[in-house]
Parts: sequence; structure tokens; C-alpha cells
Amino acid sequence: MKRLAILGSTGSIGTQTLEVVRANEGDFEVLSLTANNNVELLLEQAKEFRPELVCIFDKKLAKENEHRFRGISKVVSGIEGLIECAVIDNADMVVGAVVGMIGVRPIIEAVNAGKDIALANKETLVTAGHIIMPLAKKKNVRILPVDSEHSAIFQSLNGENRKQIDKLILTASGGPFRGMNKEELKKVTLEDALKHPNWSMGKKITIDSATMVNKGLEIMEASWLFDVDIDDIQVVIQPQSVIHSMVEFIDGAVIAQLGTPDMRLPIQYALYYPDRVWLNGERLNFYELGHIDFTKPDYNTFEGLSLAIQAAKIGGSMPTVYNAANEYAVAKFIAGQIGFTDITAIIRNMMENHNVVSDPDVDTIIEIEQEIYKQIG
Amino acid sequence: MKRLAILGSTGSIGTQTLEVVRANEGDFEVLSLTANNNVELLLEQAKEFRPELVCIFDKKLAKENEHRFRGISKVVSGIEGLIECAVIDNADMVVGAVVGMIGVRPIIEAVNAGKDIALANKETLVTAGHIIMPLAKKKNVRILPVDSEHSAIFQSLNGENRKQIDKLILTASGGPFRGMNKEELKKVTLEDALKHPNWSMGKKITIDSATMVNKGLEIMEASWLFDVDIDDIQVVIQPQSVIHSMVEFIDGAVIAQLGTPDMRLPIQYALYYPDRVWLNGERLNFYELGHIDFTKPDYNTFEGLSLAIQAAKIGGSMPTVYNAANEYAVAKFIAGQIGFTDITAIIRNMMENHNVVSDPDVDTIIEIEQEIYKQIG
Repeated sequence: MKRLAILGSTGSIGTQTLEVVRANEGDFEVLSLTANNNVELLLEQAKEFRPELVCIFDKKLAKENEHRFRGISKVVSGIEGLIECAVIDNADMVVGAVVGMIGVRPIIEAVNAGKDIALANKETLVTAGHIIMPLAKKKNVRILPVDSEHSAIFQSLNGENRKQIDKLILTASGGPFRGMNKEELKKVTLEDALKHPNWSMGKKITIDSATMVNKGLEIMEASWLFDVDIDDIQVVIQPQSVIHSMVEFIDGAVIAQLGTPDMRLPIQYALYYPDRVWLNGERLNFYELGHIDFTKPDYNTFEGLSLAIQAAKIGGSMPTVYNAANEYAVAKFIAGQIGFTDITAIIRNMMENHNVVSDPDVDTIIEIEQEIYKQIG
Repeated sequence: MKRLAILGSTGSIGTQTLEVVRANEGDFEVLSLTANNNVELLLEQAKEFRPELVCIFDKKLAKENEHRFRGISKVVSGIEGLIECAVIDNADMVVGAVVGMIGVRPIIEAVNAGKDIALANKETLVTAGHIIMPLAKKKNVRILPVDSEHSAIFQSLNGENRKQIDKLILTASGGPFRGMNKEELKKVTLEDALKHPNWSMGKKITIDSATMVNKGLEIMEASWLFDVDIDDIQVVIQPQSVIHSMVEFIDGAVIAQLGTPDMRLPIQYALYYPDRVWLNGERLNFYELGHIDFTKPDYNTFEGLSLAIQAAKIGGSMPTVYNAANEYAVAKFIAGQIGFTDITAIIRNMMENHNVVSDPDVDTIIEIEQEIYKQIG
């Protein structure tokens, strides 16, 4: 029996995590759940999984709805509440599935409290990898990736000596705008951007896939997770999303993990690692698959990718700037306030005007984030 | 320093094994080498690697050439000589790279003597898997596969729990005659059959690839090596020979090993397992690769494949019949005595007329082999 704290339980990864828990009765106990503002779903989840503690991040909503959780779960709120859920006594593993930089501090606190982390929140390692990875090592805590690419790499590294890695090969679908040029990209709409060809995901990450910022964040995350230089991470476009990512070793052997696009697989893999259990889902059918295609990404058109590599190589606070600028710009794009290509233009602009702080602590990271939000306005 | 006995050192796998040894000075010592009749190459190899013992299988040739090895290596001959080379004192690992059933007994003796086996000789497990696998377990001996498919599966299983395998996916190039129908297949020549699209291999195995008997033997070998039912081994045609084989686990994850067609990789992997060392060879370039195609094998046209599955399911002495009939028929085809489709017709005929012996011992296996040769005539 593994005891879980699930941060961001009403989002895409959170609900699928609970699907895995539901499908494997007796293997897990849920100790805490958190939501931003989706109180109805959180209440439903609380009734089903009976966590001790729930966090409604929005303080007003928390106050208004506290009575509805009476007899089920204690309600907390805000960042303190989120942290309380993350460090809850007796939890073996924290699933970090909140969206955005708000997830950084609770994860750091959970690592500090010695909890293993199933990490879906990219921003955590992108902005604070230099804090979390050494801390996890010191606390003997496992950081288990929960997205398809990093899980694929993690699975490919199973039983291998990490010193014998030659490079990581991150696959990318290329998103809905693969093959477009800069001019065409200027004309795309929010509706277009939300149509991901293969994966069903949250809104923010779907937009990030369309700009390829998501792949940029994944490069940075992979570099921290697997301790591999940015230059040794290659991105390959593979529109079918069949090969989830690969590792090339020094002998030239490439190990890959393939599968259908089903996020429950990497979630389940992190929850059960190093074991595998039956998953009630579709299987790859190579007879029907036909073919897998590969191309080089268009770094010129998809500036989100090249800017990520720049930010990662500069390091320090620059990845925070990249990420915060993107987070804010995507919110504005979803709100209909800016165009699609403005997202990466804003990131570039913010990066150009930033004075890098090397080795920023969490307070500095959060300050820079706020500063970027203010500058974009 | 690992001490090697290399059986079949003048063949394709043998010479490439010596290439790996040559490229990694100080990591290996060669204690014995064996050849069928290529005395010139064996002498060259003996001069370079200074083995204690060499075997020239052909007794007459051995006698005639013994003096040329004076001061370098002791010369032995025949099956006793081959066994002497296999069980040589102080060898840590035996590379089993002789072609054909002649390799079976020396490998059994080597396992009995507690030597790890790097196994390239398919016939060993096909005909005597029921003897060797339990013996290897008892003697705590590792059977490490040395061909690209089984090595790929072995690499894909690294760090995994074998109880969590759902199926093995053996990839096949389909050989030079992929896409042909039965009528077209009747007209192919020896020259056509020797043109393998991707791999540079020995003559026998190249013909076996063209008939797909090779894939049939591989199914049987995989079943023994990885203790997987024949029904849980799927063959997928993948003409580019990029994915060397795959494993699907119970959670739907597929782990694959990819690479360029370079036999030194699986050889080296077996020699160094579980480590990987640098290999001076070509690397996969996904940007140039373009695509990987997949189709279902044509079991009707390539009867060698369906007969293998039949033979494997019947078990006992039937795989020996399948293999011996093929071995003899291929020799006749190479000698220009029969046509291409006669190979599988002979196998079918021999299988139909065989009374199965369950659990045959080595003597019985050899007897049946001789009997089949006689019957084909």
C-alpha cells in the first residue's frame, strides 16, 4: 500500500492519476488532494477517495465551500495549504501535477520532507532544478518523471549505467502547426492551437506543444533529471507520437520506449516503479501502424525551441524568465489578448532584457517570475 | 581481463568478434580459436592473438597444417578438438559462432564446464534448448545472445522483471524477396538470394533470411532464451532493419533497441554485459532516416516461417528436423542442386514424415540430424 499526496488532482494528470488509483484497488491510499478552483470535482474526488486533507488554492472559494467537505476532509487553502498537502505525514509519494510555477515550493518542501516525487510539473525542474536535484540526492528521494518523454527516457535507462549515455533523443509530435512557416504561424487562432494531433492534455500544455515551448521546457527538464548536457539532447520530430523518446549509448545502441498516447502509462510507471502492472488501455499494433516518420525540427519557425536552448545554456535565472514569460503570454493568448506568435516574441523580449542571477534561491525565482509578469503587463 | 574461447573464429561472427577484441586492447585474452577449413585465416589469427589451442575441424587439413602452427598454438581437430577448445581451462566465456548443428555439443560441454556463453549458433537452442537452458540455470551460467534480434530483446529486458513481459516483437527485414508471391519466389536464383538488403552476413544465414527460415529459427531461440511462449512472439516486417527487436510489457509499454546494422554491437554487448563500451561505428541518424515501415509477414508465401511455428509448437525432436532439413537443403541450394522454394518444400516433407521424439538427448538429436540428411539424400 503506497500513500499518496496528489497536488493538482482536478487537472488532466491529476484525474488520470486517480483513474490509476481507482483501477488498482488496495494498492494506494490517497492522503491529500488539491485543486485550484474546481471545487465540484474536488468534492467528488474527496467523497470517493476520502483524503485527510484537501487544498482549495483560491482562499475565497475555500472559505465558501469548507462546510461541504465536513466529515470528509479538512480544508486548507493558498500556498501554505498546498505545502501542507505536500508534506502531509505518512505520504510515501507526492504526485506533483499542479500547472505552473506555483508547484515549485510545495515540491521542494516535499523533497525536504523525504517524500518521493512523481513529477508532472515541468516548471519545478526548469526553474529550480539546481536546488531540487542536489536536495533530492541529499535526502535520498526519487524524482520520477510523469510525462511521456521523460518517462520514456527513464524506462530506456532501466538497468543501464548512466555514465554510458551518449545522448538523449527527445521525440516531438511537432504539434498542430508542424510544417508551417513564420507567416502562416502568425495567422493561427486559439482554436487551431488547442487541436493537438495525438495527445489529449490540459490547455496550457496544448498551447505549449503548438509553440514547441513544451519541448523546450522538456529539454531543460531532461537535462536536470538525467544529468545530461543540453548539447547532448537531440529533438526529433516524429508526428505519430509512437516513440515516446530514446537514449543513445556510447556503443551506438539506441533504447526507446514506444506506446499508444496514454498518459496513464507514465503515471502508473512512476507510481509503481520499478514494477509494471497491467494497464487497461489500447496497445500498439505494428501491423496497423504502417510507418513512423522522422524529421528535424524547424528551429527558425519554432523559436520557442531555440530560445529554450539559449535559456538553458545561459542557466541561472534565465530558464525562470523563459518559463514565466511563456506562462503569462499563454494566459494572455488564451484570453484572446495577443496573437500566437506574440508568445515567443514576448519570451525573446523578456530574455533579452534580463540580467541573469546565477544560482537563484526560491525567493529570487518567485520574485523574478513576478517581475516578468509585471513587465509584460 | 576476460579470457575467451572463440568457436568458429574464421566465420562472419568470429572475425567480427576478433575485431572487437582488437579494438579493446587489454580487455580480452584469446585462449582458443577454431575453424572448419579456413587454415590460412586461422593461422593469421593465431599469429595475432596467440591462443594456446586451435582446432582445424577437418582432420586431414589439421594433420597437413599442424607444423605451421608450431611455436604458436597446439593444433587439435574434429568434434573432440572443438570440444577441447570449448572447455579450455581458464576461459571465462565461450563465443559460440560455428555454423550449424556441429556447434551443439561443444556448447553443452562448455555450459557443463561453467563457462558463460556468447551464443551466435542458433541451432544450439533450436535443437537442444530443453537441455541447455536447465543446465545453464543449474550451472549458474549466462547464455548471452549474439545476434541482433535477441540482443535487442536482451537489451530491452535490462532492469525489467521478466514476469511482466506481455510479448516479444521480433523484427524482420523480410529479406531480398519481401513482397514476392509464391510464383515469383520459384524463379529466384542463388545470386538473388545472397543479396541481403541490410546486413552483411555469412552465406548460410543470408539464404535463411531469404527463406525467412532464419526468423523461424529466431522465434524458437527467443522462446528458449527468454522463456516466452511461441504464441507470445510476434514477427513484424520492418524493411529498414533499424529497430532490432522489441518487448511489450503488461502495461502496454514497448521497449525497443535500435541501431545501424552492425553485428559488432551485439557481439560487444555480450562480451561486456552488463557494461557498454565505445564502438567505433556508424550511428543512427534520425534526421536522415526518414521513416520506419511496418507490415505483417506473408506466412503463406514464406512457408519457412509458418513451418517453424508448427515445429516449435510440436516441440521435442521436431525443431531438430526443421533445422536439419533446412541445413541440408540450403547446402544443396548453394551447390546448385535444388531450387529456392525446394528448401521449404523439403523441410515440410521431412516434418510430415517424422515421428516425434519428446525430450531427445544429444545423441538422439544428432542421430535424427543424420537420418534427415540421409532421407533427403
